[in-house]
Amino acid sequence: MAAAPAPIETDAAVIGAGPAGLFQVFQLGLHGIRAHVIDALPHAGGQCAELYPDKPIYDIPALPFCTGQELAERLQRQAAPFAPVYHLGQEVAALAPQADGRLLLETMGGTRLLARTVVIAAGVGAFVPRALPVPQAEAFVRYHLDGEPATLADWAGQPVAVYGDDDVALERAFHLADAGAHVTLLYRREVLQAAPHNMERLAALRAAGRIHFIAGQVTGHALDASGQLAALRVTDAEGTEHALPARLLLAWLGLSPRLGPLAHWGLAMERKQLAVDAASFATSLPGVFAVGDVVTYPGKRKLILCAFHEAALAAFSAAEHLRPGEKIALQYTTTSTHLHALLGVASPQHGTAA
Amino acid sequence: MAAAPAPIETDAAVIGAGPAGLFQVFQLGLHGIRAHVIDALPHAGGQCAELYPDKPIYDIPALPFCTGQELAERLQRQAAPFAPVYHLGQEVAALAPQADGRLLLETMGGTRLLARTVVIAAGVGAFVPRALPVPQAEAFVRYHLDGEPATLADWAGQPVAVYGDDDVALERAFHLADAGAHVTLLYRREVLQAAPHNMERLAALRAAGRIHFIAGQVTGHALDASGQLAALRVTDAEGTEHALPARLLLAWLGLSPRLGPLAHWGLAMERKQLAVDAASFATSLPGVFAVGDVVTYPGKRKLILCAFHEAALAAFSAAEHLRPGEKIALQYTTTSTHLHALLGVASPQHGTAA
Ligand SMILES: Cc1cc2nc3c(=O)[nH]c(=O)nc-3n(C[C@H](O)[C@H](O)[C@H](O)COP(=O)(O)OP(=O)(O)OC[C@H]3O[C@@H](n4cnc5c(N)ncnc54)[C@H](O)[C@@H]3O)c2cc1C
Ligand SMILES: Cc1cc2nc3c(=O)[nH]c(=O)nc-3n(C[C@H](O)[C@H](O)[C@H](O)COP(=O)(O)OP(=O)(O)OC[C@H]3O[C@@H](n4cnc5c(N)ncnc54)[C@H](O)[C@@H]3O)c2cc1C
Repeated sequence: MAAAPAPIETDAAVIGAGPAGLFQVFQLGLHGIRAHVIDALPHAGGQCAELYPDKPIYDIPALPFCTGQELAERLQRQAAPFAPVYHLGQEVAALAPQADGRLLLETMGGTRLLARTVVIAAGVGAFVPRALPVPQAEAFVRYHLDGEPATLADWAGQPVAVYGDDDVALERAFHLADAGAHVTLLYRREVLQAAPHNMERLAALRAAGRIHFIAGQVTGHALDASGQLAALRVTDAEGTEHALPARLLLAWLGLSPRLGPLAHWGLAMERKQLAVDAASFATSLPGVFAVGDVVTYPGKRKLILCAFHEAALAAFSAAEHLRPGEKIALQYTTTSTHLHALLGVASPQHGTAA
Repeated sequence: MAAAPAPIETDAAVIGAGPAGLFQVFQLGLHGIRAHVIDALPHAGGQCAELYPDKPIYDIPALPFCTGQELAERLQRQAAPFAPVYHLGQEVAALAPQADGRLLLETMGGTRLLARTVVIAAGVGAFVPRALPVPQAEAFVRYHLDGEPATLADWAGQPVAVYGDDDVALERAFHLADAGAHVTLLYRREVLQAAPHNMERLAALRAAGRIHFIAGQVTGHALDASGQLAALRVTDAEGTEHALPARLLLAWLGLSPRLGPLAHWGLAMERKQLAVDAASFATSLPGVFAVGDVVTYPGKRKLILCAFHEAALAAFSAAEHLRPGEKIALQYTTTSTHLHALLGVASPQHGTAA
């Protein structure tokens, strides 16, 4: 077996690309620190982009009106001059201090980063697919975060089940049916939450016998001799059990945040939040700072504008950690030619009319 | 003599209409608290509007680029739904706790406000005209903050002196000359800082004998029998003294901030800043909170985005002060129909497609 590839070395890693993490990247950039950003979601923006992309936010300072998605885009644009490296669709599973004081991060997907400083901006946790309440489900259910399985055609002629009630679930069922699979859509009740055009298409496919629907729960499964999924046990509202042949169970119940691994990284916590020092945003682990919804300190409010302040202060702390002994002075973006060079903007000429 | 009029009664008064004070008004508004705002400057915006209105700021979160003036305007627009009452061009001279726990504010101009809670957002101090370094100058120099003296025509035929070197000073000299006054422009040196078109106009008026110029300092003055200004003693670079007839000395040396009266209100201070509790932004005086450049606490950075966070937390504290015993819960502007009503915006309808 080949040795694991060497980890990516970086000055700073930011866990979470929500509003706190994105603004953290910008603030680190003002200190000349380039960051890698990791998020479990396939896109940046955290709760704003995932939970309320089209809803207006009214309390972002000096932005009287802005949708969640627009906020995510604006923050990415602001951070862009500092060329952050995004690792999206990757949940950080482990954070471990190394002998040389650096921090080794490892994602579920196997990406490894060796960072001199880490800022945790994990919000309410990693957004991961909500799991089916089925015993031993991990072994045979597939959850997909984004896009479609690349290998839809593999299921042509095979029995597959899709569990879910929204547009994403229905559209996956349609794709599988189009690819020639024998599709059964499952959901715990008859009423689905999808858009009218998807409901109509489902009705048509059901009428044509190309998709079957059962209102019921998955309560068991059977494997074949080679250990592959062969059938599901589905129990309907009346308690009747159905044996449903299936080679694949694709479940889509939306996303839910889970603090998950973070709770096991040895960081001091208080009621499921990271306890930080409000003057430095340092956690209990040297070189590890934290900002945004994931932290707690006296007076903490879970507001985006508070996360911005926290990120600015954490950036000073990170800079001090990277440049020990150096006094990190405040510079104004308006007047500092040093910051103008980092931002890639022209410095205005100063002159006096005599 | 008539008794002083009754003071204006209000739930909240904010001292200072810089970025901190303006966002404070918005945050108080989200708690249903309407505010009066007082500023020594004739316009809102504090340092941003006064010191760098046309310069770009790059570190306002989610606003990758914004001038000082634009920031001031955006913050006023955001606060507008809460209909704040602005008292501009008025410096707060006194703040005194009353027996009933309210705070009495008094401006230099005599405006009085009786407020249940006060937030001090005084920045680096009240912006007031820079004074001439002349002994007993207060008695005979006029400093004007905005616009022109309404009574320019009163000086027709009279000798007047204007001290200053920038566009504002020159334009005042031009206006007085146009009104028929005998104008002498004074400045400590020959080199002036005005725009080319004003320099040209000055040269033309000097050539026509309508404005005189002396490079020198005002070192004394003489009054007439009725106690009015009669002449100035002007000492030039060579040390020569000139007796300059003058009924008026108008001086314009720009603005400078002075913390001034605030230092005498009995509030705990640390190195010229107000010491506040970073969880509540409470000062040492009950019911008085403070935010922005004027405060200090562990980790404080004089950044606009930090002032925004401070204002949000101070608003919670002010609301708790006004509604003792009530638990003030966090509400999201995105989802709270209560906040939507206060903001005067429509609440989106929620529905599910069956
Ligand atoms: C409906 C709704 C309306 C709201 N309205 C407002 C409002 O009007 N004003 C306001 O100020 N706030 C509002 N909020 C709150 C606001 O969205 C949050 O305060 C903000 O998103 C917190 O930002 P954050 O970056 O700290 O965390 P999040 O936005 O939660 O982002 C954290 C990111 O970190 C990722 N992550 C976590 N753990 C890991 C890991 N181990 N590996 C990889 N990635 C990880 C997550 O996937 C996520 O993308 C609202 C929230 C909701 C739900
Ligand atoms: C050239 C320059 C560039 C800057 N660039 C940046 C930047 O890029 N990013 C950044 O974050 N910050 C920057 N700053 C700092 C930023 O402007 C300040 O942090 C911000 O203005 C502080 O806001 P404030 O509301 O606390 O105080 P101020 O802006 O100072 O406003 C305070 C107001 O209170 C009034 N006031 C005070 N006392 C009284 C009284 N007794 N009665 C009545 N009125 C009173 C004053 O007249 C003033 O209008 C810059 C500052 C300067 C000078």
